[in-house]
Amino acid sequence: MKNMVECVPNFSTSQPKVVEAILDEIKQVKAAHLLDYTYDDYYNRLVVTFAGNKNAVLKAAIDSAAKAIELIDMNQHNGQHPRIGAVDVVPFVPIKNINLKDCIRLAKKFGKTLAEKCNVPVYLYGEAATKPERRDIDWIRQGEYENLRENMRKPKRKPDFGPPSPHPTAGATITGARKIMVGFNVNLGTANLQVAKKIAKALHAKKGGLAFVKAMAAEIPEKNLTQIGMSITDFEKTPLHRVFELVKIEASRYNVPIVSSEFCGLAPLQALIDNAAYYLKIDNLNEDRVLEVAMQKAAEKAKKK
Amino acid sequence: MKNMVECVPNFSTSQPKVVEAILDEIKQVKAAHLLDYTYDDYYNRLVVTFAGNKNAVLKAAIDSAAKAIELIDMNQHNGQHPRIGAVDVVPFVPIKNINLKDCIRLAKKFGKTLAEKCNVPVYLYGEAATKPERRDIDWIRQGEYENLRENMRKPKRKPDFGPPSPHPTAGATITGARKIMVGFNVNLGTANLQVAKKIAKALHAKKGGLAFVKAMAAEIPEKNLTQIGMSITDFEKTPLHRVFELVKIEASRYNVPIVSSEFCGLAPLQALIDNAAYYLKIDNLNEDRVLEVAMQKAAEKAKKK
Repeated sequence: MKNMVECVPNFSTSQPKVVEAILDEIKQVKAAHLLDYTYDDYYNRLVVTFAGNKNAVLKAAIDSAAKAIELIDMNQHNGQHPRIGAVDVVPFVPIKNINLKDCIRLAKKFGKTLAEKCNVPVYLYGEAATKPERRDIDWIRQGEYENLRENMRKPKRKPDFGPPSPHPTAGATITGARKIMVGFNVNLGTANLQVAKKIAKALHAKKGGLAFVKAMAAEIPEKNLTQIGMSITDFEKTPLHRVFELVKIEASRYNVPIVSSEFCGLAPLQALIDNAAYYLKIDNLNEDRVLEVAMQKAAEKAKKK
Repeated sequence: MKNMVECVPNFSTSQPKVVEAILDEIKQVKAAHLLDYTYDDYYNRLVVTFAGNKNAVLKAAIDSAAKAIELIDMNQHNGQHPRIGAVDVVPFVPIKNINLKDCIRLAKKFGKTLAEKCNVPVYLYGEAATKPERRDIDWIRQGEYENLRENMRKPKRKPDFGPPSPHPTAGATITGARKIMVGFNVNLGTANLQVAKKIAKALHAKKGGLAFVKAMAAEIPEKNLTQIGMSITDFEKTPLHRVFELVKIEASRYNVPIVSSEFCGLAPLQALIDNAAYYLKIDNLNEDRVLEVAMQKAAEKAKKK
């Protein structure tokens, strides 16, 4: 494999038929590999992970986004996660033999192509942002889909590609490049959303929490629980154990137990290694000490001989 | 790769030149891959991990064992780990497209060949054992190298291969087949070996500890610490967190802190996954949720298309 990019688009749907149609577009691109997808009713959001070489990933991103724009009507959409469009955000992540700059170029290509093809406005965020405030995806999402038409009248909210007003049913799309991110959700043994919101606030970087954590609270009514939904934007600097133990500490203030956790999307091996190193107090643990990795590397080396 | 076997021989040396000579024998076998080795003065023991196809692994095992028998004089050997010979134990472990029965056959071939080539007595243990008591490696090691000549006079201690008395400088060798084992050592913040022995006893399966744990205590004089050296023979049934937390509990009785831990040899990925699932309370975590594994599988699938 020459180069490998990961793409983790977030679509505003949890309808099984729409999900299927979106995934089908990705599956039809031969050199793009569908790795994971999760969706649920309470977020009403589909998070897909696929990877492959640059060209294949770009094609799969465009085709799946176009299908989502065709099938999703944002005027019918409710969900607990902030969003501005049917194809809410499409990040490109460097994995192998490719860097963040390449992924920024890819995001711009994606944005331009999607805007032309579907007549949808597209914003660049994060490392790909064209204005400082747009580095922050939360700034772009302010007011959400419901206030998008109003918001887009402001000159500073002119999109990077496409028309100056929202697509009538698909809103707008955000794209960019970022490092590997860990999606990590913690389920709390309380149905009290106010308590969950306080705990989320305590974790959230900008509100005084951990530096590389974005946290939000959500309800899971059918389980009578609430959830802290988190993105860890640099899991090597803010590791999982620190996030989990801080949720535990903040929740203990309200006598709320942690019921369970889950990864949203895929977990990098290094996060599991760091986790074992912390909880088991292991010095100098690295991927070369993992049996499967050592074998894989040995086999690759042997092939080259 | 058609089939993959792992071999984890334990040699009674920590002399760098002898270590190097032994490793060189393995490196010279093209299709055998050296994955890991650890040795230290306080155990005075070298643990090597290598893998490859059956034939390559067998050749590397025989060549490295013969070199060790040539270079190590057990009459000069001191070390805290029980041992009966220069090549103390050589286990074969099924990894891919091969089962435990194949590995038993491989162990028997290894034992027969080494006995003939080096005139060293060889015992089969574990799944390869020819008598019930020999399933237990500790039974075979009773009395260690120092009492081997005396012990071997007993008819029930007749070796499976080779001469009926010890090799004059290399003692005897044990070989067999087993499932993947996790070597896990925990360093205690005490120099008191008696305390460490009590904690090791509390962990050891046969003495009332955890079902799939063998534990021993050792001194690390240069660090003024002691160590609980453990083998977890079935890490899926007795996971790492249970072992670690029980060491912590038993050590707390003596107000002894855990300073650090280490894997001896390689750690299976599943052990890291199980560890994260426990400490972070993650439901349904499996290897397909690990980014690198998902990508590897996707790439392999794509190749087959």
